[in-house]
This record gives sequence, C-alpha cells and structure tokens, in this order.
Amino acid sequence: MQRIIKFKEPIPTSGKGKRASHVYRIAAEIMCQKGYEGTSMNDIAEAAGLTKAGIYHYIRGKEDLLFEIMTYAMDNLDQRVIAPAREIADAEERLRKIVEGHTRRLLEGVGAITIVLEEMAALTAAHRRIIKARKRAYFDFIRQTLQQLESEGKLRNVNHTTAAFSLLGMILWISRWYRRDGKLSADQVMKDYVDIAMNGLLKYGSGSLR
Amino acid sequence: MQRIIKFKEPIPTSGKGKRASHVYRIAAEIMCQKGYEGTSMNDIAEAAGLTKAGIYHYIRGKEDLLFEIMTYAMDNLDQRVIAPAREIADAEERLRKIVEGHTRRLLEGVGAITIVLEEMAALTAAHRRIIKARKRAYFDFIRQTLQQLESEGKLRNVNHTTAAFSLLGMILWISRWYRRDGKLSADQVMKDYVDIAMNGLLKYGSGSLR
Repeated sequence: MQRIIKFKEPIPTSGKGKRASHVYRIAAEIMCQKGYEGTSMNDIAEAAGLTKAGIYHYIRGKEDLLFEIMTYAMDNLDQRVIAPAREIADAEERLRKIVEGHTRRLLEGVGAITIVLEEMAALTAAHRRIIKARKRAYFDFIRQTLQQLESEGKLRNVNHTTAAFSLLGMILWISRWYRRDGKLSADQVMKDYVDIAMNGLLKYGSGSLR
Repeated sequence: MQRIIKFKEPIPTSGKGKRASHVYRIAAEIMCQKGYEGTSMNDIAEAAGLTKAGIYHYIRGKEDLLFEIMTYAMDNLDQRVIAPAREIADAEERLRKIVEGHTRRLLEGVGAITIVLEEMAALTAAHRRIIKARKRAYFDFIRQTLQQLESEGKLRNVNHTTAAFSLLGMILWISRWYRRDGKLSADQVMKDYVDIAMNGLLKYGSGSLR
C-alpha cells in the first residue's frame, strides 16, 4: 500500500457529516500505508489538516475511529448495494445487481476503506461482534441468493458457500489492484466482472446473459 | 484474524531447514493476529518456544523475518505451481493447472503466510523490489496464459488484465475464509474453484470442461 489514493470523488454528505467522512477516508488510507498499529492519532490529524484537539472533536480514539470507518463502509454497502438488491425477487437479477453494485462501489470508492474492514483484531470485543454480524448478514444474503438459484437449477454444480466466497474474493480484491488513474475504466471492469461472475456461477452460456 | 491456525501438516524440510520454516509459520500467524507493527520479536520467540537469543540465531530482525517469510511463500509458489504449469504448452490445460495448484497450496498450506504477503509497506525498499518483481512475474504468467487463450478465441470477451486479477482475487481470498477443520474438504473446494474459474473466464460451456 504505497500509493496515496487521490480523492477525485466529491466528499459525500452522509449522516455523520462531510468533515467526519473526510477524516474516515484519510485515516483509512494512512492505516493501509502504515498498518493500524503503526498509525497514530497525530498522523491522522496531520493528514486531515486538523490539530490534535480538532481531531478529538470527531473521534474519541483510534479504535473508535476504526469502528466508525467500518460502520461507514457497512452503511454504504447497506444503502447502495444490499437495499436495492433486496427489492429484486428474481434471484438471477438480484445476483447481477449485487455484483454490479458492489463492484461499482469498490471501483468508484476509496479502496483503503474496504481494506481497513479486515482489521477485525484491532476492534474491542463489542465492536467486533457488531461488524462481524453485519459482514455475516451480507454474506448470508449472497449465499441465500445462490441457494435460490440452486433450487431453480440455475447454479452450477458447486457448493453455495464456496461459490459465495469465490465471488466475494474476486470483488473485494478490486480494492487492492484497481487504479482509477490507470488504463481500465470503471465501466469496463464492472462489465467484465459481471460476465466472469455470472458465467462462473450460473449454468447458462453467455447467450442468456446480458 | 482471531483464530489460531492449527499445524496439521508436517513441517516441511525446505532449503532453509525445518526449524526456520516452523518459525516462519508461527511468525506469520502472530503477524496476522496482531498486525506486523504490533508484533514483537519476543512474541514470536515465545510462540515458537525459543529464547530471545535463540530466535536471533534464525533471523536478524523483524523486517528480515518478514522478507524471509515472503521469500519462503514465493519459493513455494514457484516450485509447486509455476514450474509445473510452465511445462504445459496448451493454455487451457496450463490455466487449469495454475488454478488447481495455487488453490491446493492455499487450502493445504498456512493461510497466514499468504496474508502476510500483503505487508509490502513494512519491507525495506530493496526487499520490496525483490518481492514485487516475483509477484509481478506470477501475475504476468497468468496474464500471458489468458492472452494466449484470447488469441485462440477461447477467452470470454473480457480484458485479460481484469480477468487475471479477478482470478487471483478469488484464489487468494481462500486464506481468509477456508477452515481446514470446517465442513468443506480441500478436494471439494478445489474442484468448485476450477469449475467457477474456468467457466467464468473461458467461452466453453461446462460440457467441454472436466
């Protein structure tokens, strides 16, 4: 994690407010570069252009900040990916919507925030339980969709748990390789990911897929 | 990374010797649990059952140890996955061999070692260049195989760089989810991964795939 990710996206005005989400993004980047343990509140304050007193206006401490970043990431996933997909009754369409939605979020969002989601060991037990349950709920949502496809005879002859993890792996890895200033456009990558995922998981030939 | 991985596999007698690879595995696990920055040489010595003086017999220091673990992981990949696959002229067979070989290594090996491979920022510049070049060589090997499949009209209509990263993502993620003491056997997961990857990337229907 050498490269500083540029903030090309406008900072969203989420519930927590502009300034807080700006701090989350910067903090996530620094944690990716230096590791969670190697990052100090001072490093974050400096990068965010805040005084040490200023940063404590937003966050109580480093563990609390990590939990806030993870909550922000999961809220984002809930609102932009899970909620719209839940509206879709057809499992094949729902799966496509999940792949499209999650892939797009990762291609357009701040990769560091997704990577920081793995720092589970640094959370307090209470915070860890909360994030773990939210990740689990997303995983179960994907797996249930695959189970529905299985019962409809559409899933390949693969275990649905294995299938769900292989899908999550290919999607989450985007945060580690995709460069917004590189040659590949987000639209192009998203289209390819949908193709690879749908054909990899479902029995249909490419003919039946958009 | 809460769970301690059990060492069910016999410790291999690699070039560096039994004892060293044993220390690498233990060190990788602790680094996964505590983070690289949060891990001390003392923690590693204690877990490996060595005195502090004893551990310095094997390694000069923490950064050096990290580099040694990564070198061990890349040597393993070279010997067990890349070298056998390079022998195969047919690109489809070669791709299958890569997926089978790498997946099997991850299912049977110590996941922590793969996860530690991402701690690139903690390396010295000279060490980072070496590991980066080795990772790059593996990536290029996969991508060249996909390019050959493309020129043979066998690759789906997807960018080969995107295809290579999606494949690596689904494979590398195994280290984060697979539990050897869980319900899914390594053979079952490997078979499913080959199915999903080959069908996701290649134009053939499942009929032409083993």
